[in-house]
Amino acid sequence: MSGNSLGQFFRVTNFGESHGPAIGAVVDGCPPGLALTREDIQKELDRRRPGTSRHVTQRQETDQVEILSGIYEGVTTGTPIGLLIRNMDARSKDYGNILDTFRPGHADYTYWRKFGVRDPRGGGRSSARLTAPTVAAGAIAKAWLQQHAGVRIRGYMSQLGPTAIPFKSWDEVGENPFYAPNAEIVPELEAYMDSLRKDGDSIGARIEVVAESVPAGWGEPIYDRLDADIAHAMMGLNAVKGVSIGAGFDCVTQRGSEHGDELTPEGFLSNHAGGVLGGISSGQDITVSLAIKPTSSIRIERRSINRAGEPVQVQTLGRHDPCVGIRATPIAEALLAIVLMDHALRHRAQTGN
Amino acid sequence: MSGNSLGQFFRVTNFGESHGPAIGAVVDGCPPGLALTREDIQKELDRRRPGTSRHVTQRQETDQVEILSGIYEGVTTGTPIGLLIRNMDARSKDYGNILDTFRPGHADYTYWRKFGVRDPRGGGRSSARLTAPTVAAGAIAKAWLQQHAGVRIRGYMSQLGPTAIPFKSWDEVGENPFYAPNAEIVPELEAYMDSLRKDGDSIGARIEVVAESVPAGWGEPIYDRLDADIAHAMMGLNAVKGVSIGAGFDCVTQRGSEHGDELTPEGFLSNHAGGVLGGISSGQDITVSLAIKPTSSIRIERRSINRAGEPVQVQTLGRHDPCVGIRATPIAEALLAIVLMDHALRHRAQTGN
Amino acid sequence: MSGNSLGQFFRVTNFGESHGPAIGAVVDGCPPGLALTREDIQKELDRRRPGTSRHVTQRQETDQVEILSGIYEGVTTGTPIGLLIRNMDARSKDYGNILDTFRPGHADYTYWRKFGVRDPRGGGRSSARLTAPTVAAGAIAKAWLQQHAGVRIRGYMSQLGPTAIPFKSWDEVGENPFYAPNAEIVPELEAYMDSLRKDGDSIGARIEVVAESVPAGWGEPIYDRLDADIAHAMMGLNAVKGVSIGAGFDCVTQRGSEHGDELTPEGFLSNHAGGVLGGISSGQDITVSLAIKPTSSIRIERRSINRAGEPVQVQTLGRHDPCVGIRATPIAEALLAIVLMDHALRHRAQTGN
Amino acid sequence: MSGNSLGQFFRVTNFGESHGPAIGAVVDGCPPGLALTREDIQKELDRRRPGTSRHVTQRQETDQVEILSGIYEGVTTGTPIGLLIRNMDARSKDYGNILDTFRPGHADYTYWRKFGVRDPRGGGRSSARLTAPTVAAGAIAKAWLQQHAGVRIRGYMSQLGPTAIPFKSWDEVGENPFYAPNAEIVPELEAYMDSLRKDGDSIGARIEVVAESVPAGWGEPIYDRLDADIAHAMMGLNAVKGVSIGAGFDCVTQRGSEHGDELTPEGFLSNHAGGVLGGISSGQDITVSLAIKPTSSIRIERRSINRAGEPVQVQTLGRHDPCVGIRATPIAEALLAIVLMDHALRHRAQTGN
Repeated sequence: MSGNSLGQFFRVTNFGESHGPAIGAVVDGCPPGLALTREDIQKELDRRRPGTSRHVTQRQETDQVEILSGIYEGVTTGTPIGLLIRNMDARSKDYGNILDTFRPGHADYTYWRKFGVRDPRGGGRSSARLTAPTVAAGAIAKAWLQQHAGVRIRGYMSQLGPTAIPFKSWDEVGENPFYAPNAEIVPELEAYMDSLRKDGDSIGARIEVVAESVPAGWGEPIYDRLDADIAHAMMGLNAVKGVSIGAGFDCVTQRGSEHGDELTPEGFLSNHAGGVLGGISSGQDITVSLAIKPTSSIRIERRSINRAGEPVQVQTLGRHDPCVGIRATPIAEALLAIVLMDHALRHRAQTGN
Repeated sequence: MSGNSLGQFFRVTNFGESHGPAIGAVVDGCPPGLALTREDIQKELDRRRPGTSRHVTQRQETDQVEILSGIYEGVTTGTPIGLLIRNMDARSKDYGNILDTFRPGHADYTYWRKFGVRDPRGGGRSSARLTAPTVAAGAIAKAWLQQHAGVRIRGYMSQLGPTAIPFKSWDEVGENPFYAPNAEIVPELEAYMDSLRKDGDSIGARIEVVAESVPAGWGEPIYDRLDADIAHAMMGLNAVKGVSIGAGFDCVTQRGSEHGDELTPEGFLSNHAGGVLGGISSGQDITVSLAIKPTSSIRIERRSINRAGEPVQVQTLGRHDPCVGIRATPIAEALLAIVLMDHALRHRAQTGN
Repeated sequence: MSGNSLGQFFRVTNFGESHGPAIGAVVDGCPPGLALTREDIQKELDRRRPGTSRHVTQRQETDQVEILSGIYEGVTTGTPIGLLIRNMDARSKDYGNILDTFRPGHADYTYWRKFGVRDPRGGGRSSARLTAPTVAAGAIAKAWLQQHAGVRIRGYMSQLGPTAIPFKSWDEVGENPFYAPNAEIVPELEAYMDSLRKDGDSIGARIEVVAESVPAGWGEPIYDRLDADIAHAMMGLNAVKGVSIGAGFDCVTQRGSEHGDELTPEGFLSNHAGGVLGGISSGQDITVSLAIKPTSSIRIERRSINRAGEPVQVQTLGRHDPCVGIRATPIAEALLAIVLMDHALRHRAQTGN
Repeated sequence: MSGNSLGQFFRVTNFGESHGPAIGAVVDGCPPGLALTREDIQKELDRRRPGTSRHVTQRQETDQVEILSGIYEGVTTGTPIGLLIRNMDARSKDYGNILDTFRPGHADYTYWRKFGVRDPRGGGRSSARLTAPTVAAGAIAKAWLQQHAGVRIRGYMSQLGPTAIPFKSWDEVGENPFYAPNAEIVPELEAYMDSLRKDGDSIGARIEVVAESVPAGWGEPIYDRLDADIAHAMMGLNAVKGVSIGAGFDCVTQRGSEHGDELTPEGFLSNHAGGVLGGISSGQDITVSLAIKPTSSIRIERRSINRAGEPVQVQTLGRHDPCVGIRATPIAEALLAIVLMDHALRHRAQTGN
């Protein structure tokens, strides 16, 4: 109950700190007989990896995953899959100056208030580095969903700070460091980030994730609705401050005669529901939107306090993402995959389908 | 794992259907020694009760709760608290014409796809009537949070369809059927609803919920962050399509130098975080926002299909809320109370505080 | 996590006290489409009911169950099944003299130490009366196991105090108040109980439960082995002090060449394993044995203390079973059914079978 | 829900196979601030380690544990503790001859029936080697229980096959390879084991575990009684076929006037209850007894079948414990420690004590 596991039946337990010897996860409940290679997992980790463009943290981590258990002769055995990633490029001295202070907007303060003790190196447990095991586990879920039900999960950035990014094509998403579905806007995004970096500041972003070909019937109302568990997973991601499904906050001004998606023998005529009705998948695309706050570790000086409660000025050096949203797309995909797989198994338990 | 329980340690298990003999909940994990009367619970149920103004469903339910167990001589014993509410005003014949069809935007369709069988009377298990047991359980959590930690939870409507409702005063919230914190705007809301009812249509709304005096330190990162569990609970409420904390989706356009709340020895200087940093409460007010979609049961005819997959026109009569958001405030408060109490106990388990 | 639920996927949440208004259970996770009547549940409750012979408590409870939800037109809907049993014959005054003292061997003392408050009437929550909701829930599991997989679960008493009861025939089990599989020994048991009652004393017993036609493959090693979950359920039953599977404690003196059940193309040649190998069902009969202690509520005076810690003599009047083992058979059957059904669903989730 | 976690709040998730690259565990929910060194864990692993006498398996594993996370500057941080043990002496070729057959009494058969695929090397996941992570996790629980509540947990062998071992002194337990509390009987045990080894056979054993100084009040009736969770943990240990508390199966023949432990102002006068009444600790010593079956991997030829269902003769070579009971004592201690710590935290959550 200490909260470091995600999923009820397909269950991911995450461990590690940013500058400890290693991070990783144990994935329990995976069905036996799934064809799975180290490469299936590594390729998703490579999408999240730091140091791949000038717009993200320059920490050099190869994030090579070692599979410790649960796979035999290329196939899952139904036993727990242990996943290990060694930390290679920890520079703990970078944090010497903030050991005793709290960065505004950072978990530094709340960890200290909760536990009375914390590993401050690189943010310790609260670092976004801990999303790597999530991505590794999500790769397993993606593989099973694809093989078992033909489900496809992908995402993109729809807004970077003030710049909305019009959706043009899925094909363009993988061609730029922002996961932007529109190549034309990339130079504008790059210029914005370069300017921001010069300012020593950070910025928010908005991410969309979509699951296609999800069968109707997944989800367990009341209370563990499919959308509720998606919201839990997404709001559990570092820096997320808002989650919505389908029309999201736009539904506030919609009338029922507009919002309710009409059905015909050929299918639904719209998708304001975002693929979930009454907490259960409808067979339409599941569409999720995330609001991601700006990084709290910035070079600009800010007012804060130290452990003694005295006023201090805090300036964060070290290596940080000026926009954590840039690397968030593969993580959000992984989270959606884990939730969907968990509910696929829960649905199968109850109904046999 | 079938999903009808909320909370890990303070655990609410909900049962019942809209037109069955009764609805209710079992509340497990309540600390012993809490002073609690039937009236403490009933007064919250009365706030959610249908039929109290012309703007909500005219179904007449007194929603009288019977406490079946767990309280002895006015005090909780630490054993499960059984709560029972009899359904009194079920008019199942109202639903005769929709037994075989699916209302656009309604869980009718997905329940049928999931279970292959459903109780169609009044929406069965998917009815918003099932929020009554949640409210009853939330009343217990509210009482404990108040007595144990001085936490106060309250909410209000901030937008009804196109009309934003400027916050004026908490005192005005209880004085009108909309939970609007602004008496001046009430006539406009009433006129809007009267017109909407005439149209046979429905509308969305936005609700804010606030928890004051929450101690720093509640929440269990990774993955069961306090905000993640709040998002789970809120998105698990009927008709909710979006949840946000603090600045919410506004954080997308914020810079770190604006968003990150500065600390001084006297406290924080702003609350963009909404009281949660790194998934743990910071000691500030916890502020949550919900987007509630328009009711799918409307009198306007819409295209749909029947069980045979044939095209039909659907028009929903019966008694329905034209804006489920109107009665959502006490429910959202109850959900926030349940999540906070659960995390209070989880925090106490791990740290002794 | 307060412990009043049994099962992970097929999940029974129990509430109530011996002399409160009602007892009951919510059964979550039942598959949809199971044909189930009130009578299916009532007939199991009737087997456990008090007051049916002079050898058990004379409390008169008809234990009529009301189904509150989850069944529509004779079939389960996949939503929670609420079960309610009103307490009818509570004579709380019988307990006036023990409110302030602790019966030796009784949960009186530990409830008080744990909770600091307790409902003392009839043992409150610690009463064996709370096994009735377990039996009701178990009836649902029995029905599903029978219809879904042809599993049959039944039990009998194998020893009453000093008297071993040789197994003769399943047909005789239902013909006497002891669930003895041997009619010839019944007069001896009756005489023993009559004499015991005259002494105002109580006695232990041993119960066997068997599940036939369980498919191979149910169980989730490590740690939730099928036998581990059976042990949890059985040791969770009032008065049980020992649980064993197959050869049980006899395996201590067995050699591997004797204990290990040989296989042939026609099946196993023995069943020392009791149907479970490595925590997974083998396809053989699952055989479980329970040791049940003598009731602690006896008329004989015993030394104890009161709440003030002062020495007292305690004598328990009121209505009590002189051998709780006599009514334990249908309860143990119900517990085994719940565990097996839970594991059937867990197995189906992971493997699809 | 796939069953590889133990505990609700203090939660141990186990992974690995006998001949895979590594085994280990993630321990979630440990309170922050516990002083803990690698040596605290290693010393318990050394007690369980194979190859330390001629009476156990000759596999040479140093079982060196690496702590991957959760400890900073010698103190737990409240975040998950990752524990890793590399497999060093895997000789998979030893198992070439049994890949396709099932050892009588072994999980070979049921794993294959459940999963349809298995890692057969060294028993794969069903190997007793997987008790090492349990022991490592138990060392953490032991340390916390000792520091937090003064609880002491220790065990011994009370019977080896036909030879009962009279308890003489705790001091003698650590002085012989059998954990026998009686040095005089050790030569007899050694002679018996030597003879058994010559026969190529194996033998059962009985183990006792005792927890001293457990506070009154731990346990969560109904259903997660303290004794129920102890039974779950112990029956979840490889080869255990029976578990009992206090008087255990002897209670079958006891009268209430004998079994019920009388209280005086100075304490209880006996301990037939084994320290648990109504599922809650009474403050007395918790006494648990385990029946451990003989190893199924023996050199004596036995009848079995192969995957094709054809009759075969099976003889198991390789390195095996002829009596797994010999190394079971530290494992049973670890399991009891995990259960007690979990309930200590659960109790603290609900009551604050």
